[in-house]
Amino acid sequence: MAAEQDPEGRAAARPLLTDLYQATMALGYWRAGRARDAAEFELFFRRCPFGGAFALAAGVQFLASVLPPDTDPAFFEHLRALDCSEVTVRALPEGSLAFPGVPLLQVSGPLLVVQLLETPLLCLVSYASLVATNAARLRLIAGPEKRLLEMGLRRAQGPDGGLTASTYSYLGGFDSSSNVLAGQLRGVPVAGTLAHSFVTSFSGSELPPDPMLAPAAGEGPGVDLAAKAQVWLERVCAHLGLGVQEPHPGERAAFVAYALAFPRAFQGLLDSYSVRRSGLPNFLAVSLALGELGYRAVGVRLDSGDLLQQAQEIRQVFRTVAAQFQVPWLESVPIAVSNNIDEEALAQLAQEGSEVNVIGIGTSVVTCPQQPSLGCVYKLVAVGGQPRMKLTEDPEKQTLPGSKAAFRLLGSDGSLLMDVLQLAEEPVPRAGQELRVWPRGAQEPCTVRPAQVEPLLQLCLQRGQLCEPLPSLAESRALAQLSLSQLSPAHRRLQSPAQYQVALSERLQALVDSLRVGASP
Amino acid sequence: MAAEQDPEGRAAARPLLTDLYQATMALGYWRAGRARDAAEFELFFRRCPFGGAFALAAGVQFLASVLPPDTDPAFFEHLRALDCSEVTVRALPEGSLAFPGVPLLQVSGPLLVVQLLETPLLCLVSYASLVATNAARLRLIAGPEKRLLEMGLRRAQGPDGGLTASTYSYLGGFDSSSNVLAGQLRGVPVAGTLAHSFVTSFSGSELPPDPMLAPAAGEGPGVDLAAKAQVWLERVCAHLGLGVQEPHPGERAAFVAYALAFPRAFQGLLDSYSVRRSGLPNFLAVSLALGELGYRAVGVRLDSGDLLQQAQEIRQVFRTVAAQFQVPWLESVPIAVSNNIDEEALAQLAQEGSEVNVIGIGTSVVTCPQQPSLGCVYKLVAVGGQPRMKLTEDPEKQTLPGSKAAFRLLGSDGSLLMDVLQLAEEPVPRAGQELRVWPRGAQEPCTVRPAQVEPLLQLCLQRGQLCEPLPSLAESRALAQLSLSQLSPAHRRLQSPAQYQVALSERLQALVDSLRVGASP
Repeated sequence: MAAEQDPEGRAAARPLLTDLYQATMALGYWRAGRARDAAEFELFFRRCPFGGAFALAAGVQFLASVLPPDTDPAFFEHLRALDCSEVTVRALPEGSLAFPGVPLLQVSGPLLVVQLLETPLLCLVSYASLVATNAARLRLIAGPEKRLLEMGLRRAQGPDGGLTASTYSYLGGFDSSSNVLAGQLRGVPVAGTLAHSFVTSFSGSELPPDPMLAPAAGEGPGVDLAAKAQVWLERVCAHLGLGVQEPHPGERAAFVAYALAFPRAFQGLLDSYSVRRSGLPNFLAVSLALGELGYRAVGVRLDSGDLLQQAQEIRQVFRTVAAQFQVPWLESVPIAVSNNIDEEALAQLAQEGSEVNVIGIGTSVVTCPQQPSLGCVYKLVAVGGQPRMKLTEDPEKQTLPGSKAAFRLLGSDGSLLMDVLQLAEEPVPRAGQELRVWPRGAQEPCTVRPAQVEPLLQLCLQRGQLCEPLPSLAESRALAQLSLSQLSPAHRRLQSPAQYQVALSERLQALVDSLRVGASP
Repeated sequence: MAAEQDPEGRAAARPLLTDLYQATMALGYWRAGRARDAAEFELFFRRCPFGGAFALAAGVQFLASVLPPDTDPAFFEHLRALDCSEVTVRALPEGSLAFPGVPLLQVSGPLLVVQLLETPLLCLVSYASLVATNAARLRLIAGPEKRLLEMGLRRAQGPDGGLTASTYSYLGGFDSSSNVLAGQLRGVPVAGTLAHSFVTSFSGSELPPDPMLAPAAGEGPGVDLAAKAQVWLERVCAHLGLGVQEPHPGERAAFVAYALAFPRAFQGLLDSYSVRRSGLPNFLAVSLALGELGYRAVGVRLDSGDLLQQAQEIRQVFRTVAAQFQVPWLESVPIAVSNNIDEEALAQLAQEGSEVNVIGIGTSVVTCPQQPSLGCVYKLVAVGGQPRMKLTEDPEKQTLPGSKAAFRLLGSDGSLLMDVLQLAEEPVPRAGQELRVWPRGAQEPCTVRPAQVEPLLQLCLQRGQLCEPLPSLAESRALAQLSLSQLSPAHRRLQSPAQYQVALSERLQALVDSLRVGASP
């Protein structure tokens, strides 16, 4: 069970993690003798985030951690006997495309219990889906080749915000995270280099306790890497037309120290002093010294200035130095960049001909600055088998009543046509048969003949028990990429996309109309 | 110790909650024999958030939870012996005003250890300070009279994001939170009403197990509240010119159920069907029935539509009904509103003559949509007693070198003049004496004669031990309001404020200049 695998999630979602009105309503239901009325809620959003036309469903796996069969005994005396043994949950699979009004979760069970679940479910699912969607957008902008590193832990709303961001940005299409805990708990590949503080902590006068490094092949005598780097520095400076005093000795000492610790994974952070006059020649000197011993540097990183332009220049230097000293591997050392990269900057870095290989993104993926909240809601749709609808005078806030089923209709080429919501008791739409539906917001019905019909909501918890093993994070990540590829370009594009259609069955539309009329005197 | 009071915080900030590069750098320092070099880092931000001219320091109390004297034994073999027994921390007191470049934290101790603290400190302090600042802005907009309720748990990046938001929005000036856990763990006053699902879950045909309610004074026979409300409904509808069938019977049943559960704290959510034709008359009927028994309703809530306009109309109805039925208390029943309220909407709701009393804000306070990250950084300023500076070609990213002291200079009227950073060994500026300083970014020095001088950074952990008890959340909240009142209106205003001056002492400026020159060949 996921709850046992994930004590983090379990600890995070405790009974008191809720809004006070859930507790007051609980008492109200109980006093009214309605605590055990059968009820169903749906969790959905009303508008796609970021001005786009899709979202990815995520965070559902956390569910297992909020449905333990025991609750805090201190939480009101009359809640003592409560558990989730009668709660059933259907959900969009992790990594599915999600559209406005289509439930990400359907939760049914005793009224008081499923009401209490509102706040923790919203808290756990909304941000996970938002950050997965945000990451998917960044992946679409970057294209399939660039490596995307999430490094936003320090910009999150705290430790579990950071953990969620790292997990679901990976699901949405990132390659790795700097967050070690996400690696340990969620299996996200982790990656990292070094900070400016490491570089600036060295003045150059330090004496390493052991400057000797053995060759990569393990045979032959060790060499003094600092001395070797000094020799290479002179050659590199001569080639680049720089004075040998120009590169900062502390930066070089830092690189040597890092290389001694990680000879097979040496990377240089180039912009602590001056990229061209210091960081780059120092990196080359240490890399060429390592190269003589059979090691290959694995990357450089830039964290300021014009990243694209500098990457082009660095690649050019790599090429000439590779030719000059006959070290062809140097040509293709990956160039990583970071520094408040947003969607616009990413598009620039991903353009044709860019020499940038790895892009580190923190703030923009974690905080979702274009829209920092998905705005999911959790609404009552049925009690005691009777449909319920919030009518309100604000049409956008009206809800769709009744226990429902949801289907995705696909064309013969596998592309997505629309999602259809219908009452749970209606027959499943059949592939190849014409279907008459009411697109949301339309005044007229339309007909559609799907080549395939996919049920959207999967039973994941039945009466408190997990129905089948949850997919791995990597499987959900693959589903997200597959789903996005099935979406037509008009819906997938990030600026002014066509809105994907969600339609109601004729019977559901009739129910909505009858409840609206019933409420108008 | 706060760590013992706060197992939440402690659990959140575990050793693996870090960026991978901290671990790789740790190995680099260790391999270079520099793990125990004395080092000092500063945590600060470069620009005030939200286009304003101030921020509030917050989140420092979490520190105690990240400095336990034991670390995870699985975290690399050579880290086994690490602890924070040699770490010293100075900090801006919780709730202080903070300005760009002035350290929120100074952390000194062994290089490897204080490097490892970077990510968790940034993760814990940045968002806390951001949300406190955001809440302070909202309080300035709302003015002192309106009650502000934070209700954004469901919009946070997860459980601890929500807990942080609730805690620090209270510090920044909110009155209460919906988050029950914040009440339990942090002592934030909690408040809440009811959701639309509670209202729509009733059809009106339910029979409460016990509809009888005893009078508030506890003497005399109980009455059937539902029946009594029905009698009052007829009078109210006649007074308001409504048909007695118009108010929704399910909504009324929900109000009766809530009133039976909370006779002394009855509140109505008015917009599930129609405020004017249903919610308001139902609320009045139940309130007047309760009033007959000696109870007074405590509020109504609106969650859609034109909130200001509806509040004016509701207050007017309260007044005429109060006069008609001689229940003067009804006139002043608080009106609470919510629905995606941002700074602009808040300004409208807080305008002169508004009848809104309580404003519930979720998304806008928790996600800080104008700027969802404060952008704090943690930079090395000294190693082995020697100043360190990140020079870089991007002037905004240059750091201020050396172990520093910080002072706030005040005028004779108690208003804030400027903050001054100087080297730790310099004499403290004296009140009444002229001081020559370099405002940041200025080409010339200026002189200032402060009437008062306040040291800014307080020793809070010395060699791993908390120096004195941390202030309570309420004390920090009071400090924040006091500090804001000392800021001149030009700096306090939220749109296009004058930037508050931060200046360097002549010796610090000279050090910066000499390190810049030293780096330029």
